Amino acid sequence: MLQLFTRADVAALVGELYGCAPWLAERAWQALPLSSPAACKLRLAQIVREATHEQQVSLLLAHGDFSASDSGTDEAGPGGAWRMQASEGELRRMRELAAEYARQFGWPFVPDLAGPLARGLGAAQILGALQRRLENPPEMELAESLRQLHRIAELRLNGKLGLRPLLGEQVLDWCERLARHSEPPWREQGRLTVTYLSEAHRACAGQLREWMNECGFDEVHVDAVGNVVGLYHADRRDAPRLLTGSHYDTVRDAGRLDGRVGIFVPMACVRELAREGRRLPFGIEVVGFAEEEGQRFAAAFLGSSALIGAFDPAWLDLRDAQGMRMREAMLEAGLPADMQAIHALRRDPARYLGFVEVHIEQGPVLEALDLPLGVVHSINASWRALGEVVGVASHAGTTPMQARRDAACAVAEVMLLAERSAAAEPGAVATVGQLEVPGGSVNVVPGRCRFSLDVRAPADALRDRVRAVVEKGLHEVCRRRGLRAQLRETLREPAAPSDAGLQERWERAVAGLGVEAHGMSSGAGHDSMKMHRLLPQAMLFVRGSLGGISHNALESSTADDLQLACLAFQRMIEDFCVSC
Amino acid sequence: MLQLFTRADVAALVGELYGCAPWLAERAWQALPLSSPAACKLRLAQIVREATHEQQVSLLLAHGDFSASDSGTDEAGPGGAWRMQASEGELRRMRELAAEYARQFGWPFVPDLAGPLARGLGAAQILGALQRRLENPPEMELAESLRQLHRIAELRLNGKLGLRPLLGEQVLDWCERLARHSEPPWREQGRLTVTYLSEAHRACAGQLREWMNECGFDEVHVDAVGNVVGLYHADRRDAPRLLTGSHYDTVRDAGRLDGRVGIFVPMACVRELAREGRRLPFGIEVVGFAEEEGQRFAAAFLGSSALIGAFDPAWLDLRDAQGMRMREAMLEAGLPADMQAIHALRRDPARYLGFVEVHIEQGPVLEALDLPLGVVHSINASWRALGEVVGVASHAGTTPMQARRDAACAVAEVMLLAERSAAAEPGAVATVGQLEVPGGSVNVVPGRCRFSLDVRAPADALRDRVRAVVEKGLHEVCRRRGLRAQLRETLREPAAPSDAGLQERWERAVAGLGVEAHGMSSGAGHDSMKMHRLLPQAMLFVRGSLGGISHNALESSTADDLQLACLAFQRMIEDFCVSC
Repeated sequence: MLQLFTRADVAALVGELYGCAPWLAERAWQALPLSSPAACKLRLAQIVREATHEQQVSLLLAHGDFSASDSGTDEAGPGGAWRMQASEGELRRMRELAAEYARQFGWPFVPDLAGPLARGLGAAQILGALQRRLENPPEMELAESLRQLHRIAELRLNGKLGLRPLLGEQVLDWCERLARHSEPPWREQGRLTVTYLSEAHRACAGQLREWMNECGFDEVHVDAVGNVVGLYHADRRDAPRLLTGSHYDTVRDAGRLDGRVGIFVPMACVRELAREGRRLPFGIEVVGFAEEEGQRFAAAFLGSSALIGAFDPAWLDLRDAQGMRMREAMLEAGLPADMQAIHALRRDPARYLGFVEVHIEQGPVLEALDLPLGVVHSINASWRALGEVVGVASHAGTTPMQARRDAACAVAEVMLLAERSAAAEPGAVATVGQLEVPGGSVNVVPGRCRFSLDVRAPADALRDRVRAVVEKGLHEVCRRRGLRAQLRETLREPAAPSDAGLQERWERAVAGLGVEAHGMSSGAGHDSMKMHRLLPQAMLFVRGSLGGISHNALESSTADDLQLACLAFQRMIEDFCVSC
Repeated sequence: MLQLFTRADVAALVGELYGCAPWLAERAWQALPLSSPAACKLRLAQIVREATHEQQVSLLLAHGDFSASDSGTDEAGPGGAWRMQASEGELRRMRELAAEYARQFGWPFVPDLAGPLARGLGAAQILGALQRRLENPPEMELAESLRQLHRIAELRLNGKLGLRPLLGEQVLDWCERLARHSEPPWREQGRLTVTYLSEAHRACAGQLREWMNECGFDEVHVDAVGNVVGLYHADRRDAPRLLTGSHYDTVRDAGRLDGRVGIFVPMACVRELAREGRRLPFGIEVVGFAEEEGQRFAAAFLGSSALIGAFDPAWLDLRDAQGMRMREAMLEAGLPADMQAIHALRRDPARYLGFVEVHIEQGPVLEALDLPLGVVHSINASWRALGEVVGVASHAGTTPMQARRDAACAVAEVMLLAERSAAAEPGAVATVGQLEVPGGSVNVVPGRCRFSLDVRAPADALRDRVRAVVEKGLHEVCRRRGLRAQLRETLREPAAPSDAGLQERWERAVAGLGVEAHGMSSGAGHDSMKMHRLLPQAMLFVRGSLGGISHNALESSTADDLQLACLAFQRMIEDFCVSC
């Protein structure tokens, strides 16, 4: 552990991590004692977040130009790797853009030179980030730059303490290696798509099975719907089991962590147990769910539906875009395609302690708070609809404002109403993601406007309140403007609140790492949402980089954050050992 | 003239025109004396417009089912024509839809059975109107139904007084006959498209020339840019001339009256003068402008530009969609394609009294006021731009409301700001006609939103005020929301206020018909806008049916309204005879 006794110790450490910043050193000193390296990193980031704009910018100015500095790692090490590979053209372009960046923002470009695994990024990746970040609004880019400083400080602190996030690195390594299995043409482009029962999907199942065996699971098999199930036995027969896992299928052109970290984090923990030869008073059952994303067939959550006995027999007759039935795809993959076998997958709740799932956040909340982990209180209730407002198309020049029946202005009112209504309810979100005046012309008042509506909230009643306000508003606006509106519901899912006991176990585990156990709701759906119908459940979120970008090749997290997720999982297991 | 002396006379007349409605008869009696049939029609329509909703609906209920009544003309005459042609299927469909209509609105369907020329419409046209009107909001459909009642009353009054709008019929006949010249494939579909120097365009020029000769113009020729020019000599040499006319080219899939009535109304008046052998103290020069709509080449107002000496030589090198240069198209059409010849077309302002133009309104203002004619005070200044707001696309479920950078919500704010700002300035209009979230998904917060903006107002300063409010608002909204915006101006045209003297002549002419001389601005651009640079100008608008729909095959007006336009033109000429 880090021993800090005097103001001078702290000033020296802060100087090594961030460069000379007496105000930061002073506030860090006031924040002592700090219980762990994670707590130290978090507190420093919080101090910077609460500092003035000038202080924040001064840190970036003190850090200086990336091409001149080693950015937190040895010049010969990963932080300098890009320089050795970069072409002359890349270097020139980088200098030009960095100069443009400094002019635009008033501080130097601070890139991520190390990457999630601290193994160094290439020139092309750094150039890509530079181009992307030139597009950021100043406030957003300042926040992103400061996060890079924190990441550099984190790597420097690791180096200083001789820490290495080995479990997190293992998880990221598995993510990278599993991502080699992808469907063409994504595979050829180095990108990732794995849909249900495709060749890549079956290769993933085989790979997971192999790795689970290597980790020391006692029983590993692929079940009747393609789930990969690994069981690590308890220290006694008939002991209960802790069920955990997440999905290994992906959306098209996906990130590499979505779903998969929820399989790998428990795998890494079981591997540690097996290495120690340690048995717990409960078994650990890790499921790689075969399907969650609903990409190939018009049905989602196939894997978890099977485990809760809710696999709809009609799904077997669904056809993919090529016309192949799910039943045929199953038979081709060597699965029985037999409802009796699928029904047999239903778990007996009496035999389980509950279901826990680790997942990347896929959102910006944790990153904005500089927190590596979050504890999910509820998976949001959701509702979707497609809407259309019909007015009267007319000449934009000759139709007086009071004689218009402008369909798009009505939708504009509804959009802002939806935004206000959701903002007024804690945890609720409302989105108009699709918006179009079909065949619109610059000089024609819109006679028609189409839009989508997506409303989510931590509780059904809350979601329904927002939905009702928006629906009522739509009809009021249209009545007032003399328009017709229709709204067609396309999805309605209830909320899945976390089990209080499981949630508290996650909270204790996270707090034990010296990190604030931030409670949050999940805006996206997860396997836990289905498992909720059968078992108590609670999820742990891991911070995603770049605003939590997801369903995108840029999706990422760091080995350090994933290390904390593994440590939290281990602590949760210990917590169960004490009290289950 | 109509002689009405007693309450009983009035009650009898109103009963014949509208059916039994004592309240209407009483208010009509109070409105006496009325100076003309036009004044009588207008006053009755105004009384109905000011009546209660119940009284209005009672008129429709009293009128009854169209299929049972003769709707204002003899059953054997035009009002019953449809019944003789209708197929069994059409009649059944009509009964079904009429029943649905009555259920939906609470009053019977009152169609236009007579058509603009009072010659009767076919079953398919009536069925089309029924289908279209079922889509109307109730308030709008009530207004349209009452307008049909007024039209029926007008035809009944004409019949009673033995009036026939012969000049208006002539104008409509010419419109119909000229519309036979159209480019394929529109010609094959019975629709209208005539773009600059196409085969149909040249056929139109030849037809206009022939008709002008038949009308008794003294000199008729097609000039170097394709304008058809007819001159009716004055009673003396070197007399000044009154310049008038409008365009004969069309947009794609156009109405038949747009532009053309402005050639035919003065043609009809000159024909009357020639028939009487009457010469005026000034010449009348009628121009059928060859090009106004800018459909074939990326330049508009070619015909009027030539007359004011503003034909840009660079236009000769513009290419149409097939790659043909304007120069080549001119040569192919037998025009010299020679800038010297085009420059020679510039008129000497000293030789002209001014420019007047008759045009269909292309908007809903006159119809909503039950007025057949309007006097234009100004052709609006206009400004157009294409805009784009760039935010950050993010997950609709996982991005909290306060962390969003939603490009579409920002545009929604700007749309409503534009609407409010324009509504607050008399005569100003602002329109977002194109609106799109490119590649939007139901579950993605819009990272990008594109829109168009069109602002017009009777004066440049007014337009610029609205424009400035909207532009400033866009940037404020984007700053507040952390977004980037750009707005690219694509058009800016100054206002063309009418000449006070010419405008007063139109006002006196219209008032002399017993009709209110309603002053209004023109939201659309017209040849007068260009002629304004050279000569004093003022326009007369004729009411368009169906909310003034234009640039559409449904565009229409009645022979009665066009008759009034011809009478107004004649009165304006007389006014000049007295005072020029």
